[in-house]
Amino acid sequence: MKFLHTSDWHLGRQFHHVSLLEDQASLLAQLIDYIKNHSVDAVIIAGDIFDRSVPPTKAIELLNKTLNTICEELKTPVILIPGNHDSAARLNFGAKQMKASGLHIVSSFDQMVEPITIETKQAGLVSFYGMPYSDPESVKHHFQQPVSTHDEAHQLLADKIKDCFISEHKNVLVSHCFVDGAIESDSERPLSIGGSDRVSHEHFVDFDYVALGHLHQPQKKGAEYIRYSGSLMKYSFSEQHHKKGMTLVEFDKDGFKTSEHIDLKPRHDMRVIEGNMDEILQAAKSDPNNEDYVLVRLMDKHAILEPMEKFRTVYPNILHLEKPGMLVGVEQELGAASLKRSEIDMFEDFFQEAQKSSLNEAQKEVIEQVIQQLTCQSES
Amino acid sequence: MKFLHTSDWHLGRQFHHVSLLEDQASLLAQLIDYIKNHSVDAVIIAGDIFDRSVPPTKAIELLNKTLNTICEELKTPVILIPGNHDSAARLNFGAKQMKASGLHIVSSFDQMVEPITIETKQAGLVSFYGMPYSDPESVKHHFQQPVSTHDEAHQLLADKIKDCFISEHKNVLVSHCFVDGAIESDSERPLSIGGSDRVSHEHFVDFDYVALGHLHQPQKKGAEYIRYSGSLMKYSFSEQHHKKGMTLVEFDKDGFKTSEHIDLKPRHDMRVIEGNMDEILQAAKSDPNNEDYVLVRLMDKHAILEPMEKFRTVYPNILHLEKPGMLVGVEQELGAASLKRSEIDMFEDFFQEAQKSSLNEAQKEVIEQVIQQLTCQSES
Repeated sequence: MKFLHTSDWHLGRQFHHVSLLEDQASLLAQLIDYIKNHSVDAVIIAGDIFDRSVPPTKAIELLNKTLNTICEELKTPVILIPGNHDSAARLNFGAKQMKASGLHIVSSFDQMVEPITIETKQAGLVSFYGMPYSDPESVKHHFQQPVSTHDEAHQLLADKIKDCFISEHKNVLVSHCFVDGAIESDSERPLSIGGSDRVSHEHFVDFDYVALGHLHQPQKKGAEYIRYSGSLMKYSFSEQHHKKGMTLVEFDKDGFKTSEHIDLKPRHDMRVIEGNMDEILQAAKSDPNNEDYVLVRLMDKHAILEPMEKFRTVYPNILHLEKPGMLVGVEQELGAASLKRSEIDMFEDFFQEAQKSSLNEAQKEVIEQVIQQLTCQSES
Repeated sequence: MKFLHTSDWHLGRQFHHVSLLEDQASLLAQLIDYIKNHSVDAVIIAGDIFDRSVPPTKAIELLNKTLNTICEELKTPVILIPGNHDSAARLNFGAKQMKASGLHIVSSFDQMVEPITIETKQAGLVSFYGMPYSDPESVKHHFQQPVSTHDEAHQLLADKIKDCFISEHKNVLVSHCFVDGAIESDSERPLSIGGSDRVSHEHFVDFDYVALGHLHQPQKKGAEYIRYSGSLMKYSFSEQHHKKGMTLVEFDKDGFKTSEHIDLKPRHDMRVIEGNMDEILQAAKSDPNNEDYVLVRLMDKHAILEPMEKFRTVYPNILHLEKPGMLVGVEQELGAASLKRSEIDMFEDFFQEAQKSSLNEAQKEVIEQVIQQLTCQSES
């Protein structure tokens, strides 16, 4: 028996004011192709389906189309839970009516203890339990139990599920939480400050497999069978070295057998390019992936006129520019000399670039006077 | 064969800053009770399910709970279409997966020509066609046909559906539009100005029954079998004399047999009370329905201190106050005399009410001076 574990689709995400919907659609088309060409008995989406509680209609349409293909055409059941980015109440609409067609949206504690059971020759009966994203307050309120941390909440929820175990079934948990010690990245919305959102993997060891969502890097936690699949694609430049895709899990009659990362190839990679302006423009000429989403970290120490325009001619999808070289300069000057000196420096850079020649002494004197006058005016 | 025709639920509506959700829940509980106690083969909701494209989660939860009871517990199929207040794309999510459970959300032109067919001993095969709310632009764009008015759009859509008719089936249309000559009220959002939103009933005469939504007053249009059920409840004081509820339709082997209005009883009625302050307060003492949502039309011609507070002691759910008596006074004075005279009048009313005595001549002189000073200051 084989199932695909995915998470953190974040459909509808904008990144530096660019919609990623086309990129997401292309990755979901690859996921669908995989199911068409391989034996897959179920698909799990472990939360953060959408990027926000009220997603744009285009994102809803993409999810709808994707699920129609997987459930209706390919007859492959889908099990999904809301994450911290999703609205459980909005995702829950029609959930009962969808179950008959193999679309299982688990977004309440009542549904949590009603497993979706799939039977195969290879692995017998496997029960999938969805644990919708839940903060300690809502767990405390629902179960009327003293719960104050994410760890206590998830221990209680795991215990509720374990009470439902049927001895001859294998058991899979789907959960969206921050399992202790896992690696974070910039694009995961923080749950809380100071670590009180951490959950021990020990609450989950009795399951045969734990399909986690929330962290964007694929990784295991404490055991081979407690895993994050990672996000559908890179959602931050800090994820530039992450693997992205989905996890294929295989069960046999003894339960968990193997897991394997399946790469999904993005239309545009997301990466950081560092160097001086001239070096970067030169290297770009032979860069085969110049349509990637790039962040340029410009190391030049002098001011450059309209650098974004220059980079856009070679990297049309440049999204952001950092100037650590300039910052180093400013910091040094702030420590050592006056700010007026720095303004002259800036103007000399600008003049050099615009006129292709240096300021002569007479010109420099005029500019110094102008700067002095402007500074006096702004101080008066 | 019997089915319930309802429309214009507007779940999540606020009226004068008051949420009507509890009122709506109480009416839907009556609808459910009716299905429990009578033979009902289907329920139609002809659009404007929600009050806006992104409804509040409480409204989504109420609809979900209601549909779960009707479809899952009572095993009664539901056929619904979006109206002009709904987002078709948002309502469409999961629609394919819901059909197997008897929840039919028809929100695209593709689904429009795939009827939901219900078979009964009494009426044989009856096909229900949903026509999602559609403006001329989207019809023109989708079918690449020259369409510029609502009338042309609905003629084209009706023709598309008639092409799918199966000779031995009875045919029911569900549509959300403004059929020509129907009575309007304040709470229907205008579709357009100048009547270009009107649709002739003649496009619909070939159906056995036409379940319309959009207008809030129950009424027939051109034939007994082309009907508006009217809205779930009153959504405007202009609807104070409307009947509200749902329409029970009966079919036999020849198709349409009868239709009957079924009253739904609101927790709070919505009505207008007109009179002088003293008369209204006196009559309120013996008003058994003093918790109704009321608009008071106050006919007194003099200013009254904090009238809302006074009315709220007897009508706790007073929502709005109009003062046509005061307006008559202002209009007369604006025509005949200066505004300064009117301010003195207002102050005399206030003094009388606060002190229970009239201004004497000396007091009046002081006030006139103060008003004159203030007026000069504000003009300088």
